[in-house]
Amino acid sequence: MDSPILLVVPAVGLLGLLFSLYLAFGTLRHSPGPPEIASISRAIQVGASTFLRREYRVMGIAGAAFAVLLAAVLNAYVAVAFLVGVLCSAAAGFIGISISTRANGRVTFAARGGLGKALHVAFSGGAVMGMAVVSLAALGISGTYLFLSGLPSAPDSLTTITGYSMGASFVAIFVRVGGGIFTKAADMGADLVGKVEVGIPEDDPRNAAVIADQVGDNVGDVAGLGADLNQSYTDAIITSLLISAAAPVAGIAWGPKGVAFPLLLSANCIVASGLGTLVTRTLSARDIIRPEALLRVGLLVGGAISLLGSLLLSHFFLQDLRPFLAVVTGLLVGGLIGLNTEYYTYRKPLRSIIQASETGAATNIIAGLAVGLESTVLSMILLALGTLAAHYFAGLYGIAISGIGMLSVLGINVALDAFGSIADNAGGIAQMSGQPGKIRRITDHLDAVGNTTAAIGKAFAASATAAAAISLLAAYSEAMFIEQLDIREPRVMAGLLIGAVLPALFAAMIIKSVDRTAQLIVREVRRQFQEIRGLMEGTTPPDYAACVDIATRGALSRLVLPCALATIIPFVALLTLGPEALAGLLTGCILCGIFLALFMANAGGAWDNAKKRIEAGEMGGRGSIAHTASIIGDTVGDPLKDAAGPTLNILVQLTATVSLAFAPLFLRILGR
Amino acid sequence: MDSPILLVVPAVGLLGLLFSLYLAFGTLRHSPGPPEIASISRAIQVGASTFLRREYRVMGIAGAAFAVLLAAVLNAYVAVAFLVGVLCSAAAGFIGISISTRANGRVTFAARGGLGKALHVAFSGGAVMGMAVVSLAALGISGTYLFLSGLPSAPDSLTTITGYSMGASFVAIFVRVGGGIFTKAADMGADLVGKVEVGIPEDDPRNAAVIADQVGDNVGDVAGLGADLNQSYTDAIITSLLISAAAPVAGIAWGPKGVAFPLLLSANCIVASGLGTLVTRTLSARDIIRPEALLRVGLLVGGAISLLGSLLLSHFFLQDLRPFLAVVTGLLVGGLIGLNTEYYTYRKPLRSIIQASETGAATNIIAGLAVGLESTVLSMILLALGTLAAHYFAGLYGIAISGIGMLSVLGINVALDAFGSIADNAGGIAQMSGQPGKIRRITDHLDAVGNTTAAIGKAFAASATAAAAISLLAAYSEAMFIEQLDIREPRVMAGLLIGAVLPALFAAMIIKSVDRTAQLIVREVRRQFQEIRGLMEGTTPPDYAACVDIATRGALSRLVLPCALATIIPFVALLTLGPEALAGLLTGCILCGIFLALFMANAGGAWDNAKKRIEAGEMGGRGSIAHTASIIGDTVGDPLKDAAGPTLNILVQLTATVSLAFAPLFLRILGR
Repeated sequence: MDSPILLVVPAVGLLGLLFSLYLAFGTLRHSPGPPEIASISRAIQVGASTFLRREYRVMGIAGAAFAVLLAAVLNAYVAVAFLVGVLCSAAAGFIGISISTRANGRVTFAARGGLGKALHVAFSGGAVMGMAVVSLAALGISGTYLFLSGLPSAPDSLTTITGYSMGASFVAIFVRVGGGIFTKAADMGADLVGKVEVGIPEDDPRNAAVIADQVGDNVGDVAGLGADLNQSYTDAIITSLLISAAAPVAGIAWGPKGVAFPLLLSANCIVASGLGTLVTRTLSARDIIRPEALLRVGLLVGGAISLLGSLLLSHFFLQDLRPFLAVVTGLLVGGLIGLNTEYYTYRKPLRSIIQASETGAATNIIAGLAVGLESTVLSMILLALGTLAAHYFAGLYGIAISGIGMLSVLGINVALDAFGSIADNAGGIAQMSGQPGKIRRITDHLDAVGNTTAAIGKAFAASATAAAAISLLAAYSEAMFIEQLDIREPRVMAGLLIGAVLPALFAAMIIKSVDRTAQLIVREVRRQFQEIRGLMEGTTPPDYAACVDIATRGALSRLVLPCALATIIPFVALLTLGPEALAGLLTGCILCGIFLALFMANAGGAWDNAKKRIEAGEMGGRGSIAHTASIIGDTVGDPLKDAAGPTLNILVQLTATVSLAFAPLFLRILGR
Repeated sequence: MDSPILLVVPAVGLLGLLFSLYLAFGTLRHSPGPPEIASISRAIQVGASTFLRREYRVMGIAGAAFAVLLAAVLNAYVAVAFLVGVLCSAAAGFIGISISTRANGRVTFAARGGLGKALHVAFSGGAVMGMAVVSLAALGISGTYLFLSGLPSAPDSLTTITGYSMGASFVAIFVRVGGGIFTKAADMGADLVGKVEVGIPEDDPRNAAVIADQVGDNVGDVAGLGADLNQSYTDAIITSLLISAAAPVAGIAWGPKGVAFPLLLSANCIVASGLGTLVTRTLSARDIIRPEALLRVGLLVGGAISLLGSLLLSHFFLQDLRPFLAVVTGLLVGGLIGLNTEYYTYRKPLRSIIQASETGAATNIIAGLAVGLESTVLSMILLALGTLAAHYFAGLYGIAISGIGMLSVLGINVALDAFGSIADNAGGIAQMSGQPGKIRRITDHLDAVGNTTAAIGKAFAASATAAAAISLLAAYSEAMFIEQLDIREPRVMAGLLIGAVLPALFAAMIIKSVDRTAQLIVREVRRQFQEIRGLMEGTTPPDYAACVDIATRGALSRLVLPCALATIIPFVALLTLGPEALAGLLTGCILCGIFLALFMANAGGAWDNAKKRIEAGEMGGRGSIAHTASIIGDTVGDPLKDAAGPTLNILVQLTATVSLAFAPLFLRILGR
């Protein structure tokens, strides 16, 4: 019945994909540069695609097994929705990496033409991924929904579509965990021998782990954050659909229009992201605004268009402005949390870490821990107030919709993130291929800008997770017919206590995996320095592939256990302690998961930037005691902010989605 | 009506105090040693009593103001109960420090007579505090209860007695925060200049901060942990009283006997702790068992006596074994959490930190973070299962009683803790007074044993906090007539989100205070090395008092804000978001507070012991890269495990106690 207008959504999704394709060709049209640049870019490309292929193979096998399970214990439609979700999410990651690993060298070469040119190429490359994520999500979700609701024999299309949500979370956890272990093990391994033991600069071509480090930036940061934001976005849309359908929970209901609204918002996001991208891209080529400002302009233009679109949809389609107010709440909360992140990782609090570096690594670390802890406070309070406001405007539906609001210009968020990794890579290639200092300064500048946007992206991902997870919790309780979820009930309290430590368990597993893989890389790099003659003198190149291989094997072998754990825990909790305890567990996991994710992202970002400031000359600059201390702080922060922390959002959402999707099975098992 | 048998409790309390006095005289009977030892001990004594006097003055003023507030907005009886609680808790701290600062030099001197002699003096000194804590708590609580229930005009004696509980928490937060800032600022300040910059050993008499460091061990560790465990214990007893009276909540009720039972358990604890202390003390003088084993014997003997006593009380007095089973649950859960702490801070996981030290400070820190995170998992699961089991046996009353069970031999727990600090001080005095290596080895041995017992003490404190706080939450909801505390209610969820970051805010404030005070001490120690001629050569002594003064002023000026915050937050939450949100806030605070407290205690303990193992010769021993890395890890862990972490328990309990005590006022304000 709502089909005609809903057809707009996949149509806009296809247009978005075409735009992404257009941006891809635009990026590839730029020259790959001379052989010394192109060959390094090529090595990164080969390493990244090898890793991705092997990672996707493991993921494919696990995914197929899971789909069979779904078909067996639930129904074939859920399994199909799950597979579509896996395919769309995996495709977005594949597209993103294919372009980012080709754009990197092109940015290095373009830097010869100045900052604007380099910015233009890097942003275009990132925007490919940005547009691909939002378009594939809209296409996949609306397509699955329309297909399922068109089938006369299919079960309830709304509960079935949680399969898609699980698919997105499934890909996200694999890519985030695998990519996170790969990238941070390579990074730490390269730094520990290179900078600390041998005393050669970062990205020195004599370091055998340096290509693995560059590959890591792509598979960890580009594919990882893309998949992460993709699942937050998918969950925000799908939970809104679910809540809307379950009118009694929401308190307020808009009928079929309420179901169509989130899908239309996803089309709106494509339009806003596309226009914002166009403006940014066009302005970047002109070289008239500083990169920092330009990227903000893109976000603001996109945000304004998105708000306007939401307002029009809310007014004309729903004929009720309350859902629009929930969208605004989400956008505001997300924006303020982003500003809070920027404040703690780039402004005054950074000073305490920089100054503490003077008395050594211990005080640097302690100061960073304090900054990280404090940074979570305002964010969580904002989330609490946002939850109350969104609920005030449009009930539980409002909370779910506010999650979409936070990701209103997701296409640009993802683009800025991928842009940062491309710029980072371009800098590495400049260093390795011995480009003049001018080029390196341009890529460094872009890299620093990218760092800010990456930290803000993580804050958005964590915030949107909270909104989606709270809605998922409500949908799960509804599906399980839980009437009371009283904290004082011992089973609920037991669930809360257990859920609260799951993020810690998960984070510890990932940190340990990074640490162990890094130790293997350290040994390999040391071995090469000892055994390869002429390596230190720069006459013989190291064996880069060996380190890529170690990082790949390390990541893949340590990938399955945490992913399996996140999927299995809801079953164990339900079967041993019951449905109320599982709801408590999900809640405990939300609270500590969001808290730890914010803490790790912000502390890590602050340590990283403190180091950058000192390298730029503060506290004695490079080579000072403060510099050594700040390198240690940065190294500690790396696995927190880029490996363990970002997987916690996904853990929170995956456990909630699995609980919801399997609710029909749980009911059968419990005989309710 | 239950008065006759209840008179046993204050009587046993008085006997316990007399035993404490006997132990005190026994300790002071030992020789204070030659002038070079006695003079250092004297300096520590003066510094500690100066600090304590100033801290108690601030606390006295704040306490008096709070009592006036209580009398004005609640009633005079609550204010009196509060003041009695403050006095009893403050007295225990005063007694403990008076003896520990006199026992330290005596242990150094006794070490000339061998390990057994030194152990005997140190344990006797610690036992003074142990017996004082349990005796004063039993005396104060039972005395207040008997006094209040004897007054015909008094309001309900059971809600009034929460005033006592607030008094204990009030002292605990002041002493823990103040002492924590003092001790860690002095410790870091001494180490940062001494070990790192000047390269002199720990406790070198040329270091101006070394006396402040020793003073800190007393005011932070002896008084701090004593006050902390005292409030956990007080809350466990008082919540049991309350729950027992509020029969509808508990589900099962034993009438007045149920109220008397927890008080009788507190008398039982005095007997068990006293007998355990006697056995340990007698055996220690014989020099036949290793110190590690001997202290365990004390705990086991005390635990067995306590269990027997609880069994007899449950069977003959209550004529129902279910409360006994709840006590056993608590003792078991506490013991297992203690073992878990020992495992993570002394056994296999330590290896990962030791090995990671080889590649420098960054990997040492990362490994420690992973160990700390992982260590919380089993503890929280045990708490969850303990909650379920205790509730199964005796409802909510069982949960409260299980908290008393965890602290069944509290007198020995506190004694072992104070023993560790005394041994630590004795080692410092041995170093400063230039005792031969044999003496130093004996004190080092005792110090290492004390470290284990301190970590286990912290685990017990955190576990007991969980049981007491869960009961307090229930009592608060009952007092506020909250019928539903559904997680899905947006206000409850908002409360959960806000409560979850309060421990982080609190920890960040304390870490920053430690850091800033430490920086001031660093500057002072540096100044003295530069300006005092002959200091480095050892011909002129430094100005110790200057550093003691800086640490004192730093701690006192940064003490009030966090303490005030913990008291005010419940009011703010209630007035802005309502009683359900406050309940959510308390729950969020319990979850993240216990998690962070366990994480900080265990990570800090593990870093400390990794350093000790390396100093004992592993990974190249003293002076190796691994050693430098492990010193940095230990320094990072120090403010976490001894300043920020331990205050979190108190935060959790203070917020819950304040909420409960002010419930009548809240009801009036809300007009319910």
